[in-house]
Amino acid sequence: MAYYLLQRDRKGADGLANALSDALEIVGHCQLCNNFSEQPTCPTCRNEDRDSSVLCVVEMPTDVMMLEQTQSYNGLYFVLMGRLSPLDGVGPKEINLEKMIKRTQKTDGEKTVQEVILATNYTVEGEATAHYITELLKARDIKVSRIARGLPMGGEIEYVDSGTLAQAIVERKRVS
Amino acid sequence: MAYYLLQRDRKGADGLANALSDALEIVGHCQLCNNFSEQPTCPTCRNEDRDSSVLCVVEMPTDVMMLEQTQSYNGLYFVLMGRLSPLDGVGPKEINLEKMIKRTQKTDGEKTVQEVILATNYTVEGEATAHYITELLKARDIKVSRIARGLPMGGEIEYVDSGTLAQAIVERKRVS
Repeated sequence: MAYYLLQRDRKGADGLANALSDALEIVGHCQLCNNFSEQPTCPTCRNEDRDSSVLCVVEMPTDVMMLEQTQSYNGLYFVLMGRLSPLDGVGPKEINLEKMIKRTQKTDGEKTVQEVILATNYTVEGEATAHYITELLKARDIKVSRIARGLPMGGEIEYVDSGTLAQAIVERKRVS
Repeated sequence: MAYYLLQRDRKGADGLANALSDALEIVGHCQLCNNFSEQPTCPTCRNEDRDSSVLCVVEMPTDVMMLEQTQSYNGLYFVLMGRLSPLDGVGPKEINLEKMIKRTQKTDGEKTVQEVILATNYTVEGEATAHYITELLKARDIKVSRIARGLPMGGEIEYVDSGTLAQAIVERKRVS
């Protein structure tokens, strides 16, 4: 990409450089949900139609985008901007947990958060992060839930891995 | 395969023919769980160490194999040998539901089945089958549960389809 810009599109390169340095200057983190935002608080947090009694904790801003696409969640978000990963030097301090705790506490003019949904990935690091946050929130009077893990849509028992299948059996849901 | 056998391995073809006709003669269905069996009842149904208060309903014999591999289920099985599929002419009569109902009822010297786990595939036909069986069992005093549907093991929110993600949010599980 660098060769192409230098050789064939020097004007484009200048535009890209300006756009990047503008973004660096303008885009910061939302004071409330920690997602990228051009204002002190992001449009999602400012939206009064959203249910402020539920807080969905995700790893990355792309996860928020994916969840919004499902159109099945209308609560608030908190973006950790990472996951616990000791091998990469990412501990509890690096994933903004204090800011998350602050988010769950009552703010003036808003309903208190009553449920925290842990929507971290179903990987070793995502599970560890979810477990850590559960322990953190245990002392406070907040309901904590984890997104369901089991067979994905279109999944057939014959072809699914045995870890997923075991989880699907253990976490079976009563229907009647 | 037919060309290979006729041209290069006529002895093997004879062996295969005999094995197949022997199998046709010997292998029938287990009287209790409807799985393939050489005896009137299969080894799984005869095994007294298994928990006879839980019955797991699956579509095909391969599903039983997969569930056994997870080593996380110790109850009994019922194999429908199919799934509801009106377009293929498979209705409730073709998937042995009467035999399944009979299996859930008390037999002498055995504990009654107290929970039926519906482990049909998470496809349109599997879901329809699970729904139909739930309605069938509603009148009887049996707990019915469905295997969990959601993120598969190793699943990342960013890459999972939105149907699965919506299901994972809706069926979230309380952890504290």
